[in-house]
Amino acid sequence: MPQLSWFTEAYALSGSSVGFRTERLLHAEKTRFQNIEIYQTTDWGNLMVIDGCIMLTGRDNFLYHEMMSHPALFTHARAKRVVIIGGGDCGTLREVLRHDEVESATQVEIDERVTRLAEKHFPELCEANSDPRAELLFDDGIKYMADCAPGSVDVVIVDSTDPVGPAEGLFNAAFYASCFRALRQGGILVQQSESPIAHLHLIKSMRGEMSKAGFGALRTLTFPQPCYPTGWWSCTMARKGADLTEFRERGAAAKTFPTRYYNVEIHRAALAQPEFMRGLD
Amino acid sequence: MPQLSWFTEAYALSGSSVGFRTERLLHAEKTRFQNIEIYQTTDWGNLMVIDGCIMLTGRDNFLYHEMMSHPALFTHARAKRVVIIGGGDCGTLREVLRHDEVESATQVEIDERVTRLAEKHFPELCEANSDPRAELLFDDGIKYMADCAPGSVDVVIVDSTDPVGPAEGLFNAAFYASCFRALRQGGILVQQSESPIAHLHLIKSMRGEMSKAGFGALRTLTFPQPCYPTGWWSCTMARKGADLTEFRERGAAAKTFPTRYYNVEIHRAALAQPEFMRGLD
Repeated sequence: MPQLSWFTEAYALSGSSVGFRTERLLHAEKTRFQNIEIYQTTDWGNLMVIDGCIMLTGRDNFLYHEMMSHPALFTHARAKRVVIIGGGDCGTLREVLRHDEVESATQVEIDERVTRLAEKHFPELCEANSDPRAELLFDDGIKYMADCAPGSVDVVIVDSTDPVGPAEGLFNAAFYASCFRALRQGGILVQQSESPIAHLHLIKSMRGEMSKAGFGALRTLTFPQPCYPTGWWSCTMARKGADLTEFRERGAAAKTFPTRYYNVEIHRAALAQPEFMRGLD
Repeated sequence: MPQLSWFTEAYALSGSSVGFRTERLLHAEKTRFQNIEIYQTTDWGNLMVIDGCIMLTGRDNFLYHEMMSHPALFTHARAKRVVIIGGGDCGTLREVLRHDEVESATQVEIDERVTRLAEKHFPELCEANSDPRAELLFDDGIKYMADCAPGSVDVVIVDSTDPVGPAEGLFNAAFYASCFRALRQGGILVQQSESPIAHLHLIKSMRGEMSKAGFGALRTLTFPQPCYPTGWWSCTMARKGADLTEFRERGAAAKTFPTRYYNVEIHRAALAQPEFMRGLD
């Protein structure tokens, strides 16, 4: 019988913690970029931890991955070309490729080991990796976006770690300016934007930087995510040109693929602004 | 300088934990019914713990208290008489009394010490305790509802601890039958119904018992609540007679009191059913 233990992540900045009961450590390694650990939990499937921060569990990642992809793709009229920055566990890529209109999706993850470990320990998230429309690059996302041909991309999804350490450069106007240039008119940038209740200042700061980079319309969507600080998370969408008040409701209602959280009502729900967040939009 | 520590609640049933960084223990006592501790935290205001379970923090209780009261009161056509079972911290009572149409609100908390400690350590939640419409009783809520005059109440709010220990009797058809009888036609019962992702079986069970007791319409609403397991919580509404698909949107939009989470959009958002919860309604 395995000896049960707990992996707990204590967030110094928010003064709160989240933990999961673990059965055993499946893998630990120090890569060129970071420390990665994989645990088997008692109730949440496998758990990936990077530099002490919980990245995902097998049980609740569907919330995040669906909300990082479907709202943006059902807002864009027809996203043919999608770029994912980060997202090494491949869960966002899988959700993006559920959309028939997507002709190519490039995932630019800096640390190949994240993907290799996801293939082994979260194989369900990597189901779409061999899709002919998928391209997996292991490279610097900041450089990739800076080098992108102008007006060549429909949706950029920034599925990164927190804005400290390696991902810090993904949260400023210089990076957003690269995304803006790479996007076609009407294109959408969507980025995870931390906890509405713990990190509202960060959401405001990101939105300010996105505006500086030229994005004309911004929306912050909220959704539950138990494994992240406070259990409540957000993503922020920014559009090149057009507005962000509408989405393709009929398309979303007629979606031909399964989801576990996302649907038309949930999309609308995610757009609702709590009173304390008013003034952001 | 105080010595920082963490209060962590590990949920055996869900295999997950939530914690807060504390500066000091402000109070601890064993009452006739339970153990109560109050901590001062670094980032979340004061924290109340009962029998090792986190009850509320000063910073995030507005989510729960607003969602336990305003959706039910803006669904009922005109709730004159409200009964709160449990709710000893008085936060739900405060929100209920923000509604001018409420002529009386009775809070039936079994443990008077919860309320006395809330008055001291969460005074903002007790602001309405001296409202002439408020009645604070310290008694058994199960007995109170069983003895209620038939057809005398418009809204019953069950703001209790988890369905183990003292609150167990608040989650079965016998209690719901008392509520049903006490409610006027069109009356609403609303009860906290735990985490959608960790306790879906419990939500199903509660709904089954509510139906058995005669309630004709049920809706489960979801909302974020960082201090509870998984950070994602729910309440379930049950109506005597009429349906639960509509609420007084114009009334909610024209509300004359402040909220920090609740508004018309958030009310609609809470009604959205994630794909994995479909089939409940």
